[in-house]
Formats: sequence, structure tokens, C-alpha cells
Amino acid sequence: MSKKIRVGILGATGMVGQRFIQLLDNHPEFEVTALAASERSEARSFAEACSWKLPTPMPNWVRGMSLQTCQTPMDCDIVFSSLPSSMAGAVEESFAQAGYPVISNSSNHRMSVDVPLLVPEINAEHIELIKIQQKRREWKKGYIVTNPNCTTVALALALAPINQAFGIEAVMVSTMQALSGAGYPGVASLDIIDNVVPFIDGEEKKVESEPQKILGQFENGMIKAADFRVSAQCHRVNVSDGHTEAVTIKLKKKTSVAELIEVMENFQGEPQRLKLASAPSHPVVVLKENNRPQPRLDRDLEKGMATIVGRVREDIILDFRFTLLGHNTIRGAAGAAILNAELLAAKGYI
Amino acid sequence: MSKKIRVGILGATGMVGQRFIQLLDNHPEFEVTALAASERSEARSFAEACSWKLPTPMPNWVRGMSLQTCQTPMDCDIVFSSLPSSMAGAVEESFAQAGYPVISNSSNHRMSVDVPLLVPEINAEHIELIKIQQKRREWKKGYIVTNPNCTTVALALALAPINQAFGIEAVMVSTMQALSGAGYPGVASLDIIDNVVPFIDGEEKKVESEPQKILGQFENGMIKAADFRVSAQCHRVNVSDGHTEAVTIKLKKKTSVAELIEVMENFQGEPQRLKLASAPSHPVVVLKENNRPQPRLDRDLEKGMATIVGRVREDIILDFRFTLLGHNTIRGAAGAAILNAELLAAKGYI
Amino acid sequence: MSKKIRVGILGATGMVGQRFIQLLDNHPEFEVTALAASERSEARSFAEACSWKLPTPMPNWVRGMSLQTCQTPMDCDIVFSSLPSSMAGAVEESFAQAGYPVISNSSNHRMSVDVPLLVPEINAEHIELIKIQQKRREWKKGYIVTNPNCTTVALALALAPINQAFGIEAVMVSTMQALSGAGYPGVASLDIIDNVVPFIDGEEKKVESEPQKILGQFENGMIKAADFRVSAQCHRVNVSDGHTEAVTIKLKKKTSVAELIEVMENFQGEPQRLKLASAPSHPVVVLKENNRPQPRLDRDLEKGMATIVGRVREDIILDFRFTLLGHNTIRGAAGAAILNAELLAAKGYI
Amino acid sequence: MSKKIRVGILGATGMVGQRFIQLLDNHPEFEVTALAASERSEARSFAEACSWKLPTPMPNWVRGMSLQTCQTPMDCDIVFSSLPSSMAGAVEESFAQAGYPVISNSSNHRMSVDVPLLVPEINAEHIELIKIQQKRREWKKGYIVTNPNCTTVALALALAPINQAFGIEAVMVSTMQALSGAGYPGVASLDIIDNVVPFIDGEEKKVESEPQKILGQFENGMIKAADFRVSAQCHRVNVSDGHTEAVTIKLKKKTSVAELIEVMENFQGEPQRLKLASAPSHPVVVLKENNRPQPRLDRDLEKGMATIVGRVREDIILDFRFTLLGHNTIRGAAGAAILNAELLAAKGYI
Repeated sequence: MSKKIRVGILGATGMVGQRFIQLLDNHPEFEVTALAASERSEARSFAEACSWKLPTPMPNWVRGMSLQTCQTPMDCDIVFSSLPSSMAGAVEESFAQAGYPVISNSSNHRMSVDVPLLVPEINAEHIELIKIQQKRREWKKGYIVTNPNCTTVALALALAPINQAFGIEAVMVSTMQALSGAGYPGVASLDIIDNVVPFIDGEEKKVESEPQKILGQFENGMIKAADFRVSAQCHRVNVSDGHTEAVTIKLKKKTSVAELIEVMENFQGEPQRLKLASAPSHPVVVLKENNRPQPRLDRDLEKGMATIVGRVREDIILDFRFTLLGHNTIRGAAGAAILNAELLAAKGYI
Repeated sequence: MSKKIRVGILGATGMVGQRFIQLLDNHPEFEVTALAASERSEARSFAEACSWKLPTPMPNWVRGMSLQTCQTPMDCDIVFSSLPSSMAGAVEESFAQAGYPVISNSSNHRMSVDVPLLVPEINAEHIELIKIQQKRREWKKGYIVTNPNCTTVALALALAPINQAFGIEAVMVSTMQALSGAGYPGVASLDIIDNVVPFIDGEEKKVESEPQKILGQFENGMIKAADFRVSAQCHRVNVSDGHTEAVTIKLKKKTSVAELIEVMENFQGEPQRLKLASAPSHPVVVLKENNRPQPRLDRDLEKGMATIVGRVREDIILDFRFTLLGHNTIRGAAGAAILNAELLAAKGYI
Repeated sequence: MSKKIRVGILGATGMVGQRFIQLLDNHPEFEVTALAASERSEARSFAEACSWKLPTPMPNWVRGMSLQTCQTPMDCDIVFSSLPSSMAGAVEESFAQAGYPVISNSSNHRMSVDVPLLVPEINAEHIELIKIQQKRREWKKGYIVTNPNCTTVALALALAPINQAFGIEAVMVSTMQALSGAGYPGVASLDIIDNVVPFIDGEEKKVESEPQKILGQFENGMIKAADFRVSAQCHRVNVSDGHTEAVTIKLKKKTSVAELIEVMENFQGEPQRLKLASAPSHPVVVLKENNRPQPRLDRDLEKGMATIVGRVREDIILDFRFTLLGHNTIRGAAGAAILNAELLAAKGYI
Repeated sequence: MSKKIRVGILGATGMVGQRFIQLLDNHPEFEVTALAASERSEARSFAEACSWKLPTPMPNWVRGMSLQTCQTPMDCDIVFSSLPSSMAGAVEESFAQAGYPVISNSSNHRMSVDVPLLVPEINAEHIELIKIQQKRREWKKGYIVTNPNCTTVALALALAPINQAFGIEAVMVSTMQALSGAGYPGVASLDIIDNVVPFIDGEEKKVESEPQKILGQFENGMIKAADFRVSAQCHRVNVSDGHTEAVTIKLKKKTSVAELIEVMENFQGEPQRLKLASAPSHPVVVLKENNRPQPRLDRDLEKGMATIVGRVREDIILDFRFTLLGHNTIRGAAGAAILNAELLAAKGYI
């Protein structure tokens, strides 16, 4: 690739926007050429407008870049979107209509029948929906591709190899989610010190409906959703990054703990075969120590792009249970969108 | 009662021992007359030997009391025990043999066939096991009564009225447990800052086996365990006091969310009927806000003696689900033992 | 007192407003009869409008009370104000002009020459400024009395007996301040997890100027400020309630650690002499353990109304140093205002 | 350098030992060839014996290495020591006597008159003490070199350029120290949740005496300590890594905030001139935002090897004040020792 793909970021100053900038620093295929945020930030430099909250320094190239509002035109080939759901719906459609591929981390279009809910290791073939989407909406060059909710993507990566090998019938998950999942300022410190909050608005519904689309089959121009049920109870805990999930599953075929671990450890998908720049070498890492995974120690394994699984064991009510961990602002948000874009580029969609 | 019952505490300097002292300060029926701890503390004053960790001051009456080792004789009518399980087995038996009623918070004897695992609201009639225990072990005056594990007791209080009304078939629980459950020094700060630990040694097994005994029937001199299954996944989170539990249940009879709430709110047992000093007015409190219960805000409701329930709703895999909270060192430990002793006194066993 | 004084609260739904309600529950002299908040809350019930954040339940009597905007008339004899400084200036003056004694926790009028900055143990005689204030401003019945910043009041209580006995020449203080000092939502959780923030906007200036007025002399109708200098470095730490302060002082007279402790422990003021309802028995408590005071363990001593001092020792650069702790939303805010009102009532100003 | 220097680690399984291993992974000059820990770990593999607590994975090369006890012989050219002070004194001497250069992070020998307390940017010439040490103790090849306490080194780096330019007369410092400074398990979680602990055993004395030796002059075979006084108040706060220090200084010459910043930013020493592998490009980094430095955001600047300074401003009692941050287990411990070894290698002492 002689020339890099030029990238714009919608919602550049937020928590996920900052992760986009961090992860795109020195990216081999993409370079950031445009940044957009709310009207309040218009024409200000990124360094002025952004309250940078990541523990690595703000890259120098972004400091002086000027912010525009979230409107076309934008000086770029594709846009990454991490807009709040109150805005994302209309804005993303206007960019797609204007010819921009929109790689979105927002929830608005995830469940639309003609929009891929893409996890490249699992359902790379879902990108064929793009043509149907463009036809149906009469868009020429632009389109919308989404990645799942941060809790869902970590779960889906662990479920995919199990579903393929043994067939999933039911999934129960109880989550312990990180603060960064709520954005910034997000959760008030007084609400979480010495505390757990057993409610995250809208989250359970997403986790209970997205996995079936992700693990669905692309048939006759449509996604046929997988037929298992998911029950989710979502909690906020005092952790900066990294969602922990206690998962219990019921399977269609009999199997063993050893076989479950084997299929998860051997799981490989298109990103691994295509050697995409952000692809983890193993999308699912299984730890053997009985007290892992732990967010502070394990969230950065595989650069935050894998699901880390531990404590795989039998269950007395359903069939098996395990704990998993996913980095919610890397594989659960910005990293997921970047991997989606890398797949789209490799497949000629960009 | 003209004269107070004289109480000794085994393990007086530990976290639960401190709660005993705090909760027995100005108790109407009991007065602390003897304290025992490890040999390291022998003959030292309580104020010297104890690193007091509660946010209320150490009561003045206890400061100068002298510590003895955990051996008979002890200058008291009954003993409360919160010894570590490595010691509790033999020590508690030696006290019972020597004629002391032992009200234990330790796990060693909980599952013994002739030892009550007592939650007075649920199974007050189990105290009849005491006569069988004394006969079988040839103990004259002494005996052992236990209270459940801290996670179990909070769960059992919520399950009891449901089981009575609708019959429980299965229980899945994912816990988020407080630091004080591990004692002192317990969990290292570096293990829990910005973290969740998905493992608590031995805990899941206790939660999966104790509820069936607690909700069992006393028949023909034996406890016939309830026949439901429990699956538990236990996690440590960065909370000082108060275990949160995400519970999902399968029932034998059909019912509704409204009826579930009703039976929990109306639940009353022997402690309420007998107006025992430490009895909560409602053993189960149901909160209606969608983001409750929360440990920091709700653990002290009913002086820490009730299970606080919230988010009661239907489940798509089993039947119903809800979140509960219990104060693990009050109703989950010292307060449970004191309520047990109050019941035993009211029934003439002390 | 046959009838209680009727109290209105300006800013009733905020963190300090909630403390007013908690502390006035069952108060012997005051009853809350009116509540005011922002226009957003107008005509809503307190239970609806307030996101209650205290670990004791919202009192039942307040749940149904209706909120009005912060304008006269209010159905009460006096008002407590905990308005943000953007509003407090004009609103408090309008209430005072309309005849209400305004007992304010806001910073706006603290340094006005005719407004008492009242700490009843230290400068009860400053209330004589009220007459001068009323005369000057042509107010008949109403007036404004303020309490200090939360960091200042804890410091001033410790300094007062030392200043009286030995004369203070300079004070250096480095603070570690609690989250509740920033109100709600206040500090974002992502800003304080695993972190310290070495800046609190405007705080250092308050701590460096208020103590001299508090410890000043009322002479010829004016406060003559004390002549020592204060240097403050203020930090936010991950603590819910309780400001910790590392203090170093230079004195005018020679003395010893033992004498310093003695004057602090013996310190008594008008609230103790008058036995005001909220008065701590000891305004300054000195702990002898070398690792105290600690916010979680000591902030509730004396019901949060005292300054807790520890580690009194010599300093090699100035003269002496010690650590102190004050409960920032009790003695540092709502409790301070209530004690001020109790003094004013006892002295016939209400 | 054709062959790497072979390194042994005393205390390899502890918090600082783990940092040594992490920082020596792929080091250009050193390779780890021997590991020693307590007798409990003897002959076990590192992976078995060590409870790894760092957020990067344990390097593969160390997993199978066998642990020996802390006795000579050890298969290495030099040893790094992070032993507890109860052991370090005798063990380090025995290694030096046996011919090993001992690069120690322990406190035992820091203040010995013939042992360099080395901060290479400040006092590289102090390594000439080694010859005097060897002569005096009749050691042939071996010697002991120490690095300062973790709080001291961060402070000394900021003070050095100021002292050189303007002469320091007095330093007051109030610290907010990280949990990792106490090792593992170290601080109990119940002691620090929602809390500050205003005492760290032995710490204040170290901070009050080490800087004068570090900034002292090597004259006539001795270190002549600098003549300023230091007053330190040390606190533990709920932060994993990174000590924050509020510093106030009195200077011999007049200067300005701008000049202070200039000398700190321009500070360079031997490690920078020699381009040592672990040398930060700037030993002191000055941040201009008014709410920095913050441990979570800034501790990893310059790979944890620099002192990060912020809020430089005038003081009303002494002359100037500022906040600084140092990574306590990198520049404050393992990284400091490694930089010392790099200097010694460059100067021909290894």
C-alpha cells in the first residue's frame, strides 16, 4: 500500500475518540486527517478541546489539528464514529449518503437488518450485507458497518468457537463492568467508591440481543440470527478498564472442559489468516490459574484485542461456566472498529 | 430477665470478633465477660492486642479486658466463636464437651448431620437437633449451633419465602463480595485496586451446599435437605462491607414478579414474632428503584440484619432474577450468631 | 422552647442540602418547613427531585415535601443556604433583605467586612457584626452569617487553642481532600481511581485567607484579622468523606509537644458552655496512636463535629507539625451551619 | 560489548524483584542468569514460586529458572538486591566479600560513609567511594552501591538542578505514596479503601536524611553532605504506583518561577551524556497544566525514569512550592538500580 487511507473521527474528544487516536498513532494503513466533535469545540485545536484521559501522552501530530462539527464534508476517505446514540443515527446516515464508509461504534444501527454487526473473527462474510444496504438505501459509495457493544464483543468471541463446535442453546451472563464504559465524566466517583451499582441503562438488552445477530448466518441476503437465548445482569464496579463476565452456557452437544478449552484456544478467523494489523494472535486466550482473568493484570494481553477466559468448569444447572475479561475501550470499542476497517480494506471495500 | 447472660468470645481480636464486641455493646440480654484469642495475645489487654478496624470507637469496657487462650475454662455462660477453620473444629468441640453452648460462625461443623445451621427466620425448629447432638456426642449441657457462610445467609433469607410459596427448583448466583469477608489483613490492596478477583477459595462450594440444609425439613430427628440445585460464581470486588449477589431462580409453581415481591416483603419468622433484640423488622427489604441495592447506600438498612433485594424481574432462561445485598460481617457473621443466641435464650436452651 | 424554629433550606437536593436534612432529622430546636432548589425541581416532591446519596435512608417526613425555587417568600423563620457560588451572592442578599436570617455555607460573603465568618468555639463574639451589617445594609430583621470552607474549619479549630496559648506566626498545610467536597456528580470516577489530583480550583486561596478572619479580634465594630500567614497545597484523594491535612506551624512563644496537646484537648468554647445541641464534647480530639487519624475510622468521632488531631511532633524547619482530620460535609458544611444557628438562637438573634 | 553482563537478583519474587525482571527483559547489556529468594522457594521454578503482580506477562525465559537461596555462589557477574532490610545487611556484605558487585535497593547500607548513595544524574562521581570501600573492608572485586528510598530519589532529581543553580536552604515535603511502595502483600485492602494512612514506618527519617548525602560533595575520599534541612510528612493513599509529593523550598539565592522551571527542564547528567540504556531523555519533566502531575496519567512518562513536576509557584512562607511525581518501583527502585549498574559498566567498574 503506497499511500495510507485517510481517516476522520466523529466524536474525537470523547473516551473512545481518544482511544482511536492512541491506536491509530503509527498505524500502517490509516492516517488521521480530520476530527469532528460537538459545536462547542468547533475550530479549536484538539489539544485545547480535549481533556485527554489516557495514561500515554497525547500524540504530537494531533495536538494542533483543528476540530470541525460532525457534518460533511470531511477531509478523509472513511470515518470512524463514536458519537453518543442521541446523535449517531442521523449523522452516520448523512455521512454514508455523502459517500463515506462509516465504521461505527454507536448502537443506533447495530440491529438494522441491512447493517453488518461485524466481528471479523466470527462473521467476516456479513460484510456482503453492504451491497444490499447500498442498493436498498440508494447509497453509491458510502455505507455503515457497526461493531457490537463492549460487553457483547468480549462474550461473542468466547461463544463463537463453542457455538461452532457444540451448538449453544442458552447463555447466562453476570457482568462486572469498568468505569470507562460509561464515557467521561460518566460515573460519579461518589457513586462507585466502596460500591457496586447493579444497573447500567440499556446494557442488558444489548447483551441479550446482539450475540444472536453476530453469530447468525448470512443467507439469501439476510442475517439469520442464531437461535440461542441470552440472559444478562449488568453491574458497574470500581475498575478503570476491562469488563469481567461470569458466563454459564447450555450446549446442544455433549462435550468436556478440555474440549471447550481446546476449541477456544484454537480459534482463528479472517483477521488471523489475513494477518490484519490489529488482529490478536489468539482471539481467545485461556488462562489456567484459578484466580484469573483479572482486569488490572490481564486486560492488556494481546494489546487488549482478545477475550481472556479462565476458570472453565462444569455447571450443575446448565452445562459449563467460565469467567471472561475484555478490554472495553480497545476490543470493546475503538480497536473493534479499527479491525473492522482493516478487514474492509483487505476485502476491497475501502 | 433479671441478670444478663455472660458471653465469651473466641477469636475476639479478628474482624468478626470486633463486630461481636460492637454489636454486644449495650445488648439487653448479653454481657461480654471473657475474651480469647491466639497465644500471641495471651494476658494482653484487648486494647493492646487488637488492631481495631471499625469506624465506631472501641467500647471503653472492653479496652482493659484481658485476653486468654482459646481453652476452657472461660468465665462465661455461652461462647461465640469466630475462629479460623484451621482451629475451630477441635476448639469448639472441647468447649461444647466442657458444657458451654457454642454459637459458631465458623464453617467446620455447619454440615454435620447433628448440628443446626440456623437462620432463625427460616428454620427455628432445627434447634431440636441440639438434643440429638447432645445424646449422640454424650454432651450434658454444651452443644454447637452454627450460622451459615456470609454469602449464603443473605441468599437464604431471600429464597425462604419464595421456596415456601412457590417451590424452588434451581438457583444460579454470581456474587460480588466485600473485602471484610476475607478477614484482616485478608485481601492485599494491590490485588483489588482497579480490579476484580474471580475466585474465593472454598466459597462456591459453601454457597452451593448450605442453602439446601437451611431450607430443609426437620423430620424424624434429621434434617432432610431441600432438593434444589445451586450454582455459584464468586468474585471479590473493591467494597469494604456488603456482598452483592445477582440471583436467577427456577420455580416449581408459576407466579409473577408482583407475587414474588409480596411474599418477600411479608416474610416474618420466629425472631419477628418473639421480638428478639437483634431481629430486623423485615428480614427481606425490597427496593423499587432500578439501580438498587448498592452496598454503600443500603448495607446498613435494618441495622445490617436484613437482605436487601432489588430489580426483581422475569428471566428468559430460568424464571425470575433479582439482585440482593447482605451485610457480610453483621447478618453474615456476628449479627447472625447473636440472633441465634437470642433465639436459643428465648426457647430455653441457654 | 415550646415551639421549634421553622427552617428553610436553599439548595436542598445537593450533597450539603442532604446533610442538612439528615442532621435536622429529630433536631430539638429546628424543624424543616420549606425546601428550595433549582427551577428544574420546582413543584416536584423532594423524593422525586433528589438523588439521595447518604448511607442513612431519606427521612420519611421529607419525601413528600414540595420544592420551590430559591425566591422569597419561604415558609420559615430562618434559611440555611448551600447554594453554588454562582447563585448564592444575590439570592442570599435577597433573603436577608426580605427579613430572613441566612445561615450560609457558601463562599460568597465569607470575606465581607460586615459578615461574621463564624466558628462558635472560636469567635462567638463576632456575631455582634450582625448589628453593624443590618445597619449598614438597612436590613431590619434579616442578616447573613457564614461558616468557613470545609478545609478551613477543621484547621481553624486546631489552630485556635494554639494561637491563644502560644501565638501562631505561620501555618503550612498540605491537604488530602474527600470527594464529597466537590458535590455531586463532582469528581468523575475516572479522574480519581488509582489517582491523586493535585489541584482544587479556588481552594488554596480560601484556606490561605479565611483562618486569619476567623481567629481575628472584634474591635471597634470590625474584625481585625490575625497576622499569621498560611500556605496551602490542596489535593483530591480517593476518599468519600473526611479531609486529611498535614500541618506545620511556627509559633511566637516556645512550647512543647505535651503542652500543645494539652491546650488542644482542653479547648472549650461557647457551644460547650451553652451545651448547644450539635456541639461536640471536645472540639479537638487528639489521638495517640502513631497511624491516626484516618478518614474511614475517625471521621465520625464526635458525630463528625470535631477536628481529630494526631502525630503531634516537633518540626525541624518551622516548630511543630501534626496531622488533622475533619468531616467535610458535617463540621465542614451542614453541621457547621446548624451549630451557628444554635448559637444565634441561644444568643437571641433568632 | 560482545557479551552481556550476567546478572543475579536477590529477592527475585518480590514486587521490586518482579520489576527487575520486567525491566531487564531484552536489556542490551544485562541478562538474568540467577535468581534467589527465601528458603521457602528454594529449588522451585520462578513461575511456581512467584505470585506475579505486574500488568505485563511474566517473560517466558524466567518461568523455568530455578530459585536458589540468598547465598554465594551465584552464577552471575553482578547482583541486584531488593531484600527486606531484616536480611539485606549481612547478605549483601557476604556477596561483596565474595567478589560480587552488589547494586542494592535496600536501605541498610545507604548511609554508610563508604557506600555511594547513587543517583547518576546527580552524583556520578560518588562511585569513586568504591575504591575506598574496597580498601577499608579488604574486598578485592566486590562492593556495594545503593540507590535511595523511592520517595527520596524522585525528590532529589527535582532538587539537584535547583540546588546547583540557587542553593537550597530548606525543604518541606508532604507525600501521598503508592501501595506498591509497601511490597506485597503490604498494605491490607481494608486499611486503604476510602482512606488515607498518615504514617509509613521509617519513611520520614529516610526522606529527611538521604537527600543531603545524595547532593553532597565528594571531597578527600568522603562525601560532605549538603547542608540543607528536610522536613517530611508521609502518607499512604489508594494509588497502585506513583508517589506524589507536595514540596516547598527555601533558597539561598533569589530567583523566579520561570528560572526554576528552566533549570529543571535543562537538567542533564552523566546518564544523558553517556546515553545509558535506561536514562530518561529528561530526568525532570515539567508539566504546565494546573492539575498535573497525576499518578495514573503521568507515572509512565519517560518510561517511569523521570521526576514529573507541576504547579511550580511562589510560596508565602518559604520561597517556592511545586508538586512532583515519581514512579516508585521504577525510578524509585528497580530502574534506579539498573541505571546505577549501567553507569558502573560504562565507567569500567563492572
